[in-house]
Amino acid sequence: MSIENGRFLLVSRPAGRPSPQDFCLVHEGLPSLGDGEFLVRNHFASLDPAMRGWMDDLPSYLPPIALGDPVRAGTIGIIVESKAAAYPPGRWVAGLHALEHYSVGSDGGTTRLIEPAAGVPITNYLSVLGGVGLTAYFGLFDECNPKTGDTILISGAAGAVGSLVGQMARLAGCQVIGIAGGKEKCDRIVDRYGFHCAIDYKGKSLDDLAHSIRQVAPDGVDIVFENVGGVILDAALLNLRKGARVALCGLISEYNGLERVGARNLWSLIPAHASIRGVLATEFIEEFPAVRRQLEKWLIAGQLKIDEHIEDGLKNAYPAFMRLFDGSNNGKMLLKMVD
Amino acid sequence: MSIENGRFLLVSRPAGRPSPQDFCLVHEGLPSLGDGEFLVRNHFASLDPAMRGWMDDLPSYLPPIALGDPVRAGTIGIIVESKAAAYPPGRWVAGLHALEHYSVGSDGGTTRLIEPAAGVPITNYLSVLGGVGLTAYFGLFDECNPKTGDTILISGAAGAVGSLVGQMARLAGCQVIGIAGGKEKCDRIVDRYGFHCAIDYKGKSLDDLAHSIRQVAPDGVDIVFENVGGVILDAALLNLRKGARVALCGLISEYNGLERVGARNLWSLIPAHASIRGVLATEFIEEFPAVRRQLEKWLIAGQLKIDEHIEDGLKNAYPAFMRLFDGSNNGKMLLKMVD
Repeated sequence: MSIENGRFLLVSRPAGRPSPQDFCLVHEGLPSLGDGEFLVRNHFASLDPAMRGWMDDLPSYLPPIALGDPVRAGTIGIIVESKAAAYPPGRWVAGLHALEHYSVGSDGGTTRLIEPAAGVPITNYLSVLGGVGLTAYFGLFDECNPKTGDTILISGAAGAVGSLVGQMARLAGCQVIGIAGGKEKCDRIVDRYGFHCAIDYKGKSLDDLAHSIRQVAPDGVDIVFENVGGVILDAALLNLRKGARVALCGLISEYNGLERVGARNLWSLIPAHASIRGVLATEFIEEFPAVRRQLEKWLIAGQLKIDEHIEDGLKNAYPAFMRLFDGSNNGKMLLKMVD
Repeated sequence: MSIENGRFLLVSRPAGRPSPQDFCLVHEGLPSLGDGEFLVRNHFASLDPAMRGWMDDLPSYLPPIALGDPVRAGTIGIIVESKAAAYPPGRWVAGLHALEHYSVGSDGGTTRLIEPAAGVPITNYLSVLGGVGLTAYFGLFDECNPKTGDTILISGAAGAVGSLVGQMARLAGCQVIGIAGGKEKCDRIVDRYGFHCAIDYKGKSLDDLAHSIRQVAPDGVDIVFENVGGVILDAALLNLRKGARVALCGLISEYNGLERVGARNLWSLIPAHASIRGVLATEFIEEFPAVRRQLEKWLIAGQLKIDEHIEDGLKNAYPAFMRLFDGSNNGKMLLKMVD
């Protein structure tokens, strides 16, 4: 029996919320390798909100996923065949590959060798030590300039990026407020991630939320780390201290809508002399190795905690991905692609 | 006959668009002076979009205008009576006073003595050499970091701030694109203010506008100086070059609306790794004297041109102010308050 390559293809561009019909799981033969290429057996894939953006035909920092191509995703896996001397079989690698059992990497491409550290679960190389950890780190330290005593407000605080930002902000000496949905998540960000307090956004209007923030930060907030958008961002904008910095990491509440909401209370940047900056970790690519070492140190020392929500099998790629948008994931969303 | 002080009072908070009934012109006796105070006969007042914000009961960089108080405004005038040695009668002053014939200034307050330069019309001390010029200067140079060869897109380009920003950006070596309403204004910003090109927003949809910007800036813009908001800002956000800076100076299109629009295409900050920053010149107050000298030099050398639209008399304060919002003013809006 020949080995088949299961591949989860994008076959139509979602209009708003992706539907199962936008994707197709196919099984193809293994690709053949050219010089300088190698074959990766993907073990785990990272499922991230940013992938929704790649499905649209919009100019962005990466080209849109072509229709008929597998859905682009960060994965980790093991090299099983190689025509690239620097990438020998048996080595773990991570890279921007796709939701497929086997991906082709190439010398000089995005795939990098990884050397799993003792005691660090391999999946952590897709979470704390992957794009999520780098996004949290650069979003916080490069865009927000956190100082001891600053108050930071983080939305999507129980999510992968949000929970890491909160823990790093605490290491930086900030007062950390998280916004999350429901009691379980609010308890988790305080008890497990060490946030100083939590605000449950469920059932709250813009005015309610703005008031809740004011209660815990009566002088306003110095930093907003925004993952959600909508009324959550609008309420944060009503509570900016003079000189506040807003890191715009994501707007997950609007990714599947047909209309853009953005920031209705944008005017509040003027009296607060405040700024909003887009977070794009790939702008800091030269610093990745050093920052990964820092993240690994924090992780091994127990100063960063991560929860991973692992779903099993390419056939579950669609429902696993959609969990990101209804908040039913508990931790960094990963897809296991090997038995 | 005793001298009366005409005063244009705010008597109710406008719901959306101000109506004539929100104001009342009264005539009162002259105020008496305490120690350290002086009486200013206001000659001209500056009418600015920011005044609309001061009429709302919202937290801001200045307290709201109290109901029953005259409408706060920058004015220039001559001291006619004084109990402050440093402010002798006969001297010109400028300050944040109100729409009234006579204002009381005080030693240590916002009123400053001015020394009109030869050949500079006194009204220029309310435009190029007043808040408008300072806002344009700090908004451009402190928030946008303009570099030779940068492309800058300016909305409200025929307005007081916009026209000055365009001229300063040209002095800084930028490629200057202006957005204005109608052929006359578009011609003016190119022919008189030296913009490299103009886009007429009238009758254009978001897609039309985004396309028009793309035609003149196919690689995107490095700087957006935003005075207007709404679809004009949304179209600009679709044309950001990597690392773009957006100076948010005003959102005049929404000041009189009951709903906030903000920036619907805020997501575009992420792939462009771009930022939006509120412009608040008062954060740079220590630098005002040096910047005023620079502005005066440019003005006297003919490197900055300003048009002033002067309406006559406190009784015309309401229609003159409202011209700011329908675009029917031609240049910096001023109100003459002395015969």
